[in-house]
Amino acid sequence: MLFGSIEAGGTKFVCAIGNEKGIILEKEVFETLDPESTMNNVITFFKNKNILALGVGSFGPLQLNKRKDKYGYITTTPKKLWQNYNLLGKLRESFNIPIGLDTDVNIAALGEYIYGAAKGLNSCFYMTVGTGIGAGIVSEGKIIHGLLHPEVGHIMVPMEKTDNFIGICPFHKNCLEGFASGPAIEKRWNMKGTKIPKDHKCWDLESYYLAFAVSQAVLMYSPEKIILGGGVMKQEHLFPKIRKKVIEILGNYIKVEEITHNIDSYIVYPVLGENAGICGGLALAIKEYKKWRKKNVPFKI
Amino acid sequence: MLFGSIEAGGTKFVCAIGNEKGIILEKEVFETLDPESTMNNVITFFKNKNILALGVGSFGPLQLNKRKDKYGYITTTPKKLWQNYNLLGKLRESFNIPIGLDTDVNIAALGEYIYGAAKGLNSCFYMTVGTGIGAGIVSEGKIIHGLLHPEVGHIMVPMEKTDNFIGICPFHKNCLEGFASGPAIEKRWNMKGTKIPKDHKCWDLESYYLAFAVSQAVLMYSPEKIILGGGVMKQEHLFPKIRKKVIEILGNYIKVEEITHNIDSYIVYPVLGENAGICGGLALAIKEYKKWRKKNVPFKI
Repeated sequence: MLFGSIEAGGTKFVCAIGNEKGIILEKEVFETLDPESTMNNVITFFKNKNILALGVGSFGPLQLNKRKDKYGYITTTPKKLWQNYNLLGKLRESFNIPIGLDTDVNIAALGEYIYGAAKGLNSCFYMTVGTGIGAGIVSEGKIIHGLLHPEVGHIMVPMEKTDNFIGICPFHKNCLEGFASGPAIEKRWNMKGTKIPKDHKCWDLESYYLAFAVSQAVLMYSPEKIILGGGVMKQEHLFPKIRKKVIEILGNYIKVEEITHNIDSYIVYPVLGENAGICGGLALAIKEYKKWRKKNVPFKI
Repeated sequence: MLFGSIEAGGTKFVCAIGNEKGIILEKEVFETLDPESTMNNVITFFKNKNILALGVGSFGPLQLNKRKDKYGYITTTPKKLWQNYNLLGKLRESFNIPIGLDTDVNIAALGEYIYGAAKGLNSCFYMTVGTGIGAGIVSEGKIIHGLLHPEVGHIMVPMEKTDNFIGICPFHKNCLEGFASGPAIEKRWNMKGTKIPKDHKCWDLESYYLAFAVSQAVLMYSPEKIILGGGVMKQEHLFPKIRKKVIEILGNYIKVEEITHNIDSYIVYPVLGENAGICGGLALAIKEYKKWRKKNVPFKI
């Protein structure tokens, strides 16, 4: 049984074919150009591959409310050519199979939940820290959507006492993304994060803001696993700093062993690494296929 | 069809009988004494009432993880007589019917979700602001639990610029409960909240902290309805202040009509008022009964 997965990003589209176990068999990367050329490449890749369903994780904002007219559209993105683009419609035009769509970060969370660090659990909090900051949350076995979808990158954070940075988010002054994303690090220190030495004050400040976000996640979702991915988290030395600060912030209030005794395996890097999204796309495809079968094949053969 | 509901609080136990529509037919309130006397009153109330199932919302902390030995216990409560008390076990000993247990605030959220302000929706955020601050969250139709249960009262909040209060939470300095609960208001102004005039600075500060919490909830859960209950929220003039500040904090980033155009019906007082918890207990009882039937009565009669 073959399934398709698309990770639609602002700079590249990753397309893959995998099996029912979530194992990737074939993968190709296309540059994100205008919608027409990009989608031509995508559609050509999947043509005649006999996939049973397709799972898509996309950059946004996306309209994911099925009751709205523009369900399946990329809406107000700063990428002008993609504004108001009917991504799901275009795929449905080309493939008469079940297609699932969700945000890029929700799909990555699903990937880690089904095949990665949170496998076998009932919940997880997956946050990516890179060009932007975003999080996907699985709770009670389901991805959280609601009115729109969570926008964890834009939560307000209390400024660290010694900090006087203004923040780079055009919408909010003291929000997480404005203070702790890759571009915020670069702007604050006039240096790319990858060039900043491990013992630089930068990382104390960075781990403070990320630990704040993780602590809010613990208090608000009570997830069974915290997974931190994205470019900035490749700085492995951030993990012990974040874990230590989370313990401090929680102030011994949450008395569960996973946090008080096993925080090293509670706050972790994605097991699937950069494949979290594409594996999550497969998981979504499989889920959509099962839903479709349940509706259309009432008796098991 | 009759169902039972218990709202187990630190000062009183509310017991009720209701029907399958969530309508309360009989209610009685008992003072919270030692476990033995209290539970005797509770058990006597429900004896011979022919209820099909029982739903319980209790003060905590509770062990709600079914895989743990102490599932169904009240654990480390400051109420000494109730520490390490097997609440669910005691009820199971007396009633051979399906029994559901959850936290008091989760049950109130469920009540508003099934019968109240969030009826017909898929998600809601219910926060009670009184002696303590707590929240119950329904997302994708399910109450969020995870590792333990959310502890929204203890999220860190950025201090308002003019504020120099220390906060009353014994665990955290700048947490929501330490800054904005009823006792925090009283300690800060040396006056009971009910005695403080509407135009006092107190309410600006209070609405700032509550608006911060509501904004984090919007960004983290993306709920379809925000419901604010509890003693402090009886100060109705807080609602317009909170709504205004939420809009300011979100900074026009979340572009959904429910918030940008209809915030008056987005952030609301509980429709069920003080019955949210007891109605939620009925909803939980009905849920448990349906689950039990599904398992035990495979064919519809």
